[in-house]
Amino acid sequence: MREKLHTAAELSTQTQLACWEAPFRLESGTMLPGLVLAFRTWGRLNPSGDNAVLVCHALSGSADADEWWPGLFGTGRALDPERDFIICSNILGGCYGTSGPLHPHPDDGLPWGSRFPEVTIRDIVRAQAMLVDRLGVRRLALVLGASLGGMQVLEWAAMFSGRIERMAPIGVSGRHSAWCIGLNEAQRQAIFADPQWKDGRYAPGPGPTGGLAVARMMAMCSYRSWYNFEARFGRRLQPDQPLFQVASYLRHQGKKLQQRFDPCSYVRITQAMDSHDLGRGRGDYRDVLRDLSVPALVISISSDILYPPQEQRELADHLQEAIYHRLMSPAGHDGFLIETDALNDLLVRFRAGTLPAPPAASLAAF
Amino acid sequence: MREKLHTAAELSTQTQLACWEAPFRLESGTMLPGLVLAFRTWGRLNPSGDNAVLVCHALSGSADADEWWPGLFGTGRALDPERDFIICSNILGGCYGTSGPLHPHPDDGLPWGSRFPEVTIRDIVRAQAMLVDRLGVRRLALVLGASLGGMQVLEWAAMFSGRIERMAPIGVSGRHSAWCIGLNEAQRQAIFADPQWKDGRYAPGPGPTGGLAVARMMAMCSYRSWYNFEARFGRRLQPDQPLFQVASYLRHQGKKLQQRFDPCSYVRITQAMDSHDLGRGRGDYRDVLRDLSVPALVISISSDILYPPQEQRELADHLQEAIYHRLMSPAGHDGFLIETDALNDLLVRFRAGTLPAPPAASLAAF
Repeated sequence: MREKLHTAAELSTQTQLACWEAPFRLESGTMLPGLVLAFRTWGRLNPSGDNAVLVCHALSGSADADEWWPGLFGTGRALDPERDFIICSNILGGCYGTSGPLHPHPDDGLPWGSRFPEVTIRDIVRAQAMLVDRLGVRRLALVLGASLGGMQVLEWAAMFSGRIERMAPIGVSGRHSAWCIGLNEAQRQAIFADPQWKDGRYAPGPGPTGGLAVARMMAMCSYRSWYNFEARFGRRLQPDQPLFQVASYLRHQGKKLQQRFDPCSYVRITQAMDSHDLGRGRGDYRDVLRDLSVPALVISISSDILYPPQEQRELADHLQEAIYHRLMSPAGHDGFLIETDALNDLLVRFRAGTLPAPPAASLAAF
Repeated sequence: MREKLHTAAELSTQTQLACWEAPFRLESGTMLPGLVLAFRTWGRLNPSGDNAVLVCHALSGSADADEWWPGLFGTGRALDPERDFIICSNILGGCYGTSGPLHPHPDDGLPWGSRFPEVTIRDIVRAQAMLVDRLGVRRLALVLGASLGGMQVLEWAAMFSGRIERMAPIGVSGRHSAWCIGLNEAQRQAIFADPQWKDGRYAPGPGPTGGLAVARMMAMCSYRSWYNFEARFGRRLQPDQPLFQVASYLRHQGKKLQQRFDPCSYVRITQAMDSHDLGRGRGDYRDVLRDLSVPALVISISSDILYPPQEQRELADHLQEAIYHRLMSPAGHDGFLIETDALNDLLVRFRAGTLPAPPAASLAAF
């Protein structure tokens, strides 16, 4: 099985695969013929099956949570393999081993490409829940994630509240904003404009990687901030050529993603993000938030222009039981990957039940 | 002459051309063989030659200032053709009649394309100054502009302070930030990734318009704000298709620019913006600001994420004589094109000398 899968990059040797041969029905009604989820675990499930923690990854992430969120892992830290059974799975539609556009289509053995249907955050979460079941988990002590990961956290609370003790949605909203949809659309159009896109039926290999690099360059700006770029790069040039360091940095980021991500996955995942709306089919959005009973730690990054703090403030204001914290950082949205010491501290105290809600005064200052 | 020029769109019948046959030396040392500036005027120059106002346009603008800034024009308004002699010229490197990539190269009569050299804001301003001279203007009562227009305003003050009575730089910085350079670079890469780009030597006609449309979609996001998109579009779909309104809007904006702008001009103008640095070759940046003696009205748009208010605040703090105003608007950077009533009011009072500096308290709240 493992050998047959196309993935965007080499899977780590610790990555496991869970397979289901029964069709998987998407929210749209479309049936996927079977399902493969690539996942990793750390630590051991306890006999009562209630020490599991689920980590949900963001747009370009993989199941290797200890690689992209190393600061949270370790003894005494938020994710402690000596205490927790930590699970992270590559999302449906992804390109790191889970069913998605790179998997072979059953009809012809060629990659699904754009034949892979659009999926929603709810589809992603329902697939994760099947994995959690199969692993024998009775109850998740914590579900956490930032950005697209945070969307999954919130849908977990909406779909499986009885199975979750705590949740930590970070740098995310309860429904994708017009702003985020617009930025995603511009990025998809960069991919579609690449002549190698070929309606998403490109052969495995090069593909529309130029368009993907452009999309990534745009995205990287939105993940950072004016301050972050100014402090890191200012108007400095590369030592050996008349090229601004920030331009060189963005080109490098574009090339790096080219080498490790599938453009069609990028399209399907951004579409899944755009579908994100806790209210869809459930009634009034704020009523839906009020019905979410899972105790939450809702975290903003102060300089996040992509999912600005008012979005998390709105979540915290309407969830049944929420502590709101604004992580002061000039890094922008990517602060969740950068300020991991502060984030770890908040999560540790949240899990220990010793994190007080900030005083009203600091909320008023928001 | 007029018939021979390629322009990105039909020039308005009121557009005039000024031509110089002598070579024009750029800041880089490169010589342009002659110069054409397309410009418009409104009102009449008075006998003492001191009632002129220069309007500087932004990235995709033209000499038709009354079309893209109509709210400032009219009797009793900031730009009053009954009182003022108003001048606006298409910038060097532009595609609305002024010397730029669409003009025929003297060697082969084909468009210059990327053979057109990189220019700086100082080159743009020096060409404008030649036009102002030719029109017989002795003194400019006001030089104003936003964004790229504001860069020209500041360079006017640095290069020709003795010829300006007042200046109004809006939504701009004194040196282009890493953030803005990064966003421009991503947009240029969208154009370069278009197979029709052909190193900027595409034939007149279609060209890399797909890449230009993608660049415009990105740019439009940066010109607006989370609030602007949320209020206008939210998560609403187009009536007839499963397409978010914001996606449809951005595609439309991309197509509109495709039809009226030259991709090579877009590249050269964004490079000129990136070159913007009042300090270049003049010593310490803040000392240069302190040497600028032209009385200034410096205006921020409160929700501007592209040229955030701290950039204008820095200008006002260091200029010799400046009034700082923050225009409260949820529209983002494009607020300068949208909130024209408020802007007009500020400019009218500034010109009349009746605009007080805001009280210290409101500055502290910044």
